Amino acid sequence: MFRPSENAYELDSPTIMPKASGFLWNDKMMIHVNCRGYVVAQFMQPEPAKYSHAPNLEAKTFMQPEQPYYAHHPGRFVYVKDEEKGEIFSAPYEPVRVLPDHYRFYLGKDYISWTVIKNDVQIDMRLRLPKEGALELWRIKVKNLSNKTRKLSVYPYFTVGYMSWMNQSGEYNQTLQAIICSSITPYQKYTDYDKVKHYRDKTFLLAEQEPFAWEVNQETFEGEGGITSPTALEADALSKGDARYETPVSALQYKLTMKPEEEREFRFIFGPANNEEEITHVRQQYFGQKQDNEADGFMDAEQDFARYIAEGKGCLHIKTPDHDFDHFINQWLPRQMYYHGITNRLSTDPQTRNYLQDNMGMSYIKPKIARDAFLTALSQQKENGAMPDGVILHKDAELKYINQVPHTDHCVWLPICLHAYLDETNDYAILNERVPFAGANNDATVLEHMNLAMRWLINDRDERGLNYINQGDWCDPMNMVGYKGKGVSGWLTTASAYAFRIWADICEIVDQQDMATTFRLEAKKSNETINKYLWDGNWYARGITDDNVVFGISKDVEGRIFLNSQGWALLSGAANEEQKNKLLQAVTDQLESPYGVEMLGPPFTAMREDVGRVTQKHPGSAENGAVYNHAAIFYIYALYEVGETDNAYRLLRKMIPGPDIDDVVQRGQLPVFIPNYYRGAYKEIPRTAGRSSHLFNTGTVSWVYRCLIDGLFGVKGVTEGLQIKPQLPTDWDKASIVREFRGATLHIEVIRDNNVGQTEVYLNEERVKDNIIRDIEKETTYHIQVKIP
Amino acid sequence: MFRPSENAYELDSPTIMPKASGFLWNDKMMIHVNCRGYVVAQFMQPEPAKYSHAPNLEAKTFMQPEQPYYAHHPGRFVYVKDEEKGEIFSAPYEPVRVLPDHYRFYLGKDYISWTVIKNDVQIDMRLRLPKEGALELWRIKVKNLSNKTRKLSVYPYFTVGYMSWMNQSGEYNQTLQAIICSSITPYQKYTDYDKVKHYRDKTFLLAEQEPFAWEVNQETFEGEGGITSPTALEADALSKGDARYETPVSALQYKLTMKPEEEREFRFIFGPANNEEEITHVRQQYFGQKQDNEADGFMDAEQDFARYIAEGKGCLHIKTPDHDFDHFINQWLPRQMYYHGITNRLSTDPQTRNYLQDNMGMSYIKPKIARDAFLTALSQQKENGAMPDGVILHKDAELKYINQVPHTDHCVWLPICLHAYLDETNDYAILNERVPFAGANNDATVLEHMNLAMRWLINDRDERGLNYINQGDWCDPMNMVGYKGKGVSGWLTTASAYAFRIWADICEIVDQQDMATTFRLEAKKSNETINKYLWDGNWYARGITDDNVVFGISKDVEGRIFLNSQGWALLSGAANEEQKNKLLQAVTDQLESPYGVEMLGPPFTAMREDVGRVTQKHPGSAENGAVYNHAAIFYIYALYEVGETDNAYRLLRKMIPGPDIDDVVQRGQLPVFIPNYYRGAYKEIPRTAGRSSHLFNTGTVSWVYRCLIDGLFGVKGVTEGLQIKPQLPTDWDKASIVREFRGATLHIEVIRDNNVGQTEVYLNEERVKDNIIRDIEKETTYHIQVKIP
Repeated sequence: MFRPSENAYELDSPTIMPKASGFLWNDKMMIHVNCRGYVVAQFMQPEPAKYSHAPNLEAKTFMQPEQPYYAHHPGRFVYVKDEEKGEIFSAPYEPVRVLPDHYRFYLGKDYISWTVIKNDVQIDMRLRLPKEGALELWRIKVKNLSNKTRKLSVYPYFTVGYMSWMNQSGEYNQTLQAIICSSITPYQKYTDYDKVKHYRDKTFLLAEQEPFAWEVNQETFEGEGGITSPTALEADALSKGDARYETPVSALQYKLTMKPEEEREFRFIFGPANNEEEITHVRQQYFGQKQDNEADGFMDAEQDFARYIAEGKGCLHIKTPDHDFDHFINQWLPRQMYYHGITNRLSTDPQTRNYLQDNMGMSYIKPKIARDAFLTALSQQKENGAMPDGVILHKDAELKYINQVPHTDHCVWLPICLHAYLDETNDYAILNERVPFAGANNDATVLEHMNLAMRWLINDRDERGLNYINQGDWCDPMNMVGYKGKGVSGWLTTASAYAFRIWADICEIVDQQDMATTFRLEAKKSNETINKYLWDGNWYARGITDDNVVFGISKDVEGRIFLNSQGWALLSGAANEEQKNKLLQAVTDQLESPYGVEMLGPPFTAMREDVGRVTQKHPGSAENGAVYNHAAIFYIYALYEVGETDNAYRLLRKMIPGPDIDDVVQRGQLPVFIPNYYRGAYKEIPRTAGRSSHLFNTGTVSWVYRCLIDGLFGVKGVTEGLQIKPQLPTDWDKASIVREFRGATLHIEVIRDNNVGQTEVYLNEERVKDNIIRDIEKETTYHIQVKIP
Repeated sequence: MFRPSENAYELDSPTIMPKASGFLWNDKMMIHVNCRGYVVAQFMQPEPAKYSHAPNLEAKTFMQPEQPYYAHHPGRFVYVKDEEKGEIFSAPYEPVRVLPDHYRFYLGKDYISWTVIKNDVQIDMRLRLPKEGALELWRIKVKNLSNKTRKLSVYPYFTVGYMSWMNQSGEYNQTLQAIICSSITPYQKYTDYDKVKHYRDKTFLLAEQEPFAWEVNQETFEGEGGITSPTALEADALSKGDARYETPVSALQYKLTMKPEEEREFRFIFGPANNEEEITHVRQQYFGQKQDNEADGFMDAEQDFARYIAEGKGCLHIKTPDHDFDHFINQWLPRQMYYHGITNRLSTDPQTRNYLQDNMGMSYIKPKIARDAFLTALSQQKENGAMPDGVILHKDAELKYINQVPHTDHCVWLPICLHAYLDETNDYAILNERVPFAGANNDATVLEHMNLAMRWLINDRDERGLNYINQGDWCDPMNMVGYKGKGVSGWLTTASAYAFRIWADICEIVDQQDMATTFRLEAKKSNETINKYLWDGNWYARGITDDNVVFGISKDVEGRIFLNSQGWALLSGAANEEQKNKLLQAVTDQLESPYGVEMLGPPFTAMREDVGRVTQKHPGSAENGAVYNHAAIFYIYALYEVGETDNAYRLLRKMIPGPDIDDVVQRGQLPVFIPNYYRGAYKEIPRTAGRSSHLFNTGTVSWVYRCLIDGLFGVKGVTEGLQIKPQLPTDWDKASIVREFRGATLHIEVIRDNNVGQTEVYLNEERVKDNIIRDIEKETTYHIQVKIP
């Protein structure tokens, strides 16, 4: 049904998981491809824009969780007609929905493809992107598998959709061998014209080989037969129609007479352009330079893209008793982490917390990028230490959407994310870099910036010492706890305590003892405050509202327990042993589901006006009690920190679909990325629990990687070198790890040995002191044996 | 194929004009119903909102011209399954698209209905609205036309669509016998919560009769069969499923065993609600009060609605040699005019020019409403005489969209529209009403307000005496002629001259001779200025840009001639006899098409940056050279003013689809309303020329009525009474007119008589002096004979 292969993941049915999908990206675009042929593609100009549209005027907004597909959803399809029998099917499955005799959906790391066979005709569709530019590179192969000559018409059908109410049209351009659809983005204020005129409002489908016929008019193509059985296919040839203020489509016809076993390949380029010259240039660049037997621009671009994606390979390669886990960790996790770090989620103003955490992940792939990002973020810090809600990455960007709402947690992420970077690189020199402030002429060292950020957290507290939440903390939609200026966040107070601890550790390393002492004291005071006001007897409360109501406590019927308050109390050190055991039990009893640990429970079913928008989300969706993976991974990280090894791995494993079929089918997503959530409300709405949001933008992934490094495999950097401290689940008796670290390669074999009482590390068969591999040299390979009890 | 019947218009095919449609409305909602079952419904809360949504997140914007329909477009359908044979069809035609044996689409004035017969099963669907409230009242009848017992399942299928990414769900409520779908409108700023919480975010389908089964989950209903062949219909019963953060649908199943000729009727109510109590109340109100043989709330509401619509009946009933014309004028034109006047296009901030002209139309239906509207508009005038871009009608309304862009024409419409009101009512007392100013404490009489408006027009001119255009005049998208502060509008200068003339006439009537002299002089000066700067030799230019470039002239390759500049030069008196003849010829040669007169020509095919957004619209669409009926009717009005009788009627007739089939089919719209445009570019893109925009919001209709009153039938009010001055086209030899006027009813028989040299009017067989019927008494019927040469 579905399985990992060497460098891909495969699905054998278009119907069992109709939303199963993969995604490709480059610096300029992202494309989300569904197993049935539906596609959502966005490119930057500078804000996300589309070149293949819905059939109506869509709202421009962020990607929607669990986005439903519909008949006229944008997609890339190939209709195939048997000219002799008149039979029609379409690849990959939509829009005709004839079940093929064979179907396979391949998710490669740098390509997405299908192989579909119906009545001895095989269609292969393969999509890659170029490394640069917003373009889709398509190869479509047709093969006659039968032992007789077949007459076929093959119709690539790429949707263009409702481009604009102001102006939309399309026609075939003979010279360019391209369907070119034109539009003008609607606007009303003349001041917008200067922006709009540079938009790439054209959509083109460029064909390497001249088509027999074409259709650019969607209505004409469909006729009364509709998209499932287009009237235009009844004719010998498409009508070569155009679209004049009509919805355009890119449909081409190739009429083929194919001998037994004959195969033909067609190549296409689909994407946006500002003008015809640009399309001419694309044609020349991709199809124009082919020498005999040499790669042309198209092939070069495919290879460049493969290399680009391969750069996102991480610093860990594992082999464990759980092969599906290995496949995901080795193949897919670094890819997703790289996507976040290299594109910043294709946003021009990423939320500060996302920007920092996504770049925490880049510490494991391209630390230089992480370094630059930390400096960029700090350069937008205010002189009073406050971090902005979003980090502006493009000169034309404005803070939008959620970044216009004030959140109070952004400073917390600075030491936490920097910590991972420093562990990985030992680059303490970054602390001496001078960085400016936002809207000011002066600058300061990173160390000073960090101190200011910590000071800001200390100052933004009420008389009890609890951090104000304003209109939200990490939980964006918790917007009404403190909007009157009094409400506080228990989680944020705990997270601040953890941040102070981490920062104190760093200060100590760079010989800033006074600061270390100061912040360690602040951490201690914070923990005391938390215990004084927020310990509810068996777990920690989430906060206190503007009206001084403590919430997330046992007497609450909904939102009784919040996950974040528990895990971070372990990280901050607030919870003593008794509290730890109680809260672990409470989480297991009240929040754990087969699909992971839920973010809160029970989910809210009605607006709680002193908590806010989070309570209005559908029960079990997103922050209202989903298995919100970002929250879940914080908790798992905390479990590793306190040595809850089995507990941690059990929950970590639930973050990845599978391995058993029922689990994957229920989630509806292949294990090629971690989604931002799986539906929760397992106790209340079991029918839908576990479903993936199918959103692959999530702060989760860098933390999963950090859990592997710092926790599960225990191969974390320290100033002296690499500290080895595996926390394998008790049912694993071994694991092999290849760790790339500060330029060296370490092969680490971990074996469970009943004869040891504690972890023993051997390098060249010599026991290693403190289990820290010291004096690691670049471009050197080390072989390390580890015995664990 | 299609034909008018007594009180309806009928269409016999669902495929010949797939966009043919009608609309119903009340104060709270508007519903646009397509012949195939697709529906767009909007209700006010206070801004337009939807309860039956697209399958994706739609942009919230004004209605789009020529809006394409698509497979999952919102609609109201009935699937019918023959339980014995398993055959399926759907009424009215979508989504299954099985051609029925018989199909009829009825557009009534207060209902829209279908009769569909397939395999001896007849389905009648009939929609009405209540007079108050946003609700759809549906009757669905099923009849077995065969001579044997039939087993059928009938499934009303009302789309709900993608309600909200934040929260959407739905379930069947046994007590209420209703499917109730719930959602929360997405928002991010807590300050929006107070608005959002009052939104009617639920959508319900209430059934009078208990269904056998139901389905609320759209994906479950459709299955792999899709909307054209839903998998759920294969089962004996729908699965009684719910939607939990899934796209909901309202599908009910009635299982019927029907004897020969047996008929069953089902009634449903569909609409939005804020909460369950509201739906409970609807059930009680509409279905709860039925006594034996007495009307229940549902029937009462239907009758109330019929009475409400019947109030929009106008003051003219005609019988001419052109019966199709009569049908439209008697049945449909006043209805459309009433819709505009009573709803203000369901806008909370109508554009000032629309508000005034729509209420000009109300002068002929409910003059009191027109009076109040003029006072409301003037109360938002600034002390310097400037009129705002939009008139705020709701306390929560804000000026939005186009009303944030400054336009300079709004003052012009005051005397022009008031003129029609005064002619109709003789209510010169309105001029003495005291009205406040916007943002000021003082007030002034209407007369003084009007003078200020005229003064504003005089002052907002350049040194040549031409009116600044700023970012647009009547032509909204002509936004870049004068945005730098220098460009001027020739049309607006001409229109101002006409406004001054009209206002001088009114001043004279109320014995304000000085003012009359002043404004008459201003009109004269304006006309001289126009002739000096804008006469191009054969027609008038449209304006002069910021860079002092005259445009709309013979040397322009695109936008060579603009219609408005010509007609208004006739109205203002700028054009002398020679100029008149030249410009009439130019319009005929360059702008007339089989579908009416185009607004400009040739249409622009590329942005002209010193003219603006109008040049970016698709050639032949909207203001870029469509038969833009609002502009066309100005021209026709001018033709009547200068006695171009045949010319005027020929163009007026082209405004109404038909009567021949090819014409109606090409326009794609039934003659039940006048759309804002028919596609132009007749010379350049003949394939699409004539197509209706299907938008029934247009300032055109009140002017059409005024053309009938002032021009074609010449039955205009003057201070002394009713002036009779018909301008019948020369191929009409008679016409009968019933004119309601100032409380009296006048039956007017016009006959062409070769023996008369000029129009002669007879009352009680006595020749009437000046052809003015004087001393008209209320509640009196007059019989008048008119002889025309």
